[in-house]
Amino acid sequence: MTDRQNPLPWVDTGGGVSRRVLSHTPEVMLVEFRFGPDGFGAPHHHPHIQATYVREGRFEFTIDGVAHIISAGDTLIVPSDAVHSCRALEPGTLIDVFTPRRDDFL
Amino acid sequence: MTDRQNPLPWVDTGGGVSRRVLSHTPEVMLVEFRFGPDGFGAPHHHPHIQATYVREGRFEFTIDGVAHIISAGDTLIVPSDAVHSCRALEPGTLIDVFTPRRDDFL
Repeated sequence: MTDRQNPLPWVDTGGGVSRRVLSHTPEVMLVEFRFGPDGFGAPHHHPHIQATYVREGRFEFTIDGVAHIISAGDTLIVPSDAVHSCRALEPGTLIDVFTPRRDDFL
Repeated sequence: MTDRQNPLPWVDTGGGVSRRVLSHTPEVMLVEFRFGPDGFGAPHHHPHIQATYVREGRFEFTIDGVAHIISAGDTLIVPSDAVHSCRALEPGTLIDVFTPRRDDFL
């Protein structure tokens, strides 16, 4: 796909969080996550490598038991299969990149 | 790398554009590009797949001769080896994702 991408519909993921897929190929996927006050993404893991860019807000990210505080403009990378969770300290938006694509989001 | 990422220094790429690498693994790289007024990234191509997220501003992206206007919150994907260029219609910032990593930026 070379064209400007049209996002997929918003999905309520629970925990005060919703997501929508912005664009994707088999190799890479961009997903927007919106966190309300106290939004929480419960601990999980996946084989895909995840790179997170903070669009706005402030978050506590826990990766393999280690907490990281990130805010607007920060990035972090979650290695393949690392257990991670994310709590909003201030409401905001993350742009999550997955490689390869998370087909479970389609 | 599981830690919060520290960006590399800003690099002037010419054409009123500068970039800095935000984070990377061998598989994926996040790069911030800042475009001043009339900033222009000249036509080029690379084997890496590129996914672009518009942080702010308004841009004319040309991919394989087709122009696309994108603005804040929009995304697009540049296929492997597609010739592409980018002109700022309003100053702003892009977050470019490359898979695999662009080792030429390190």
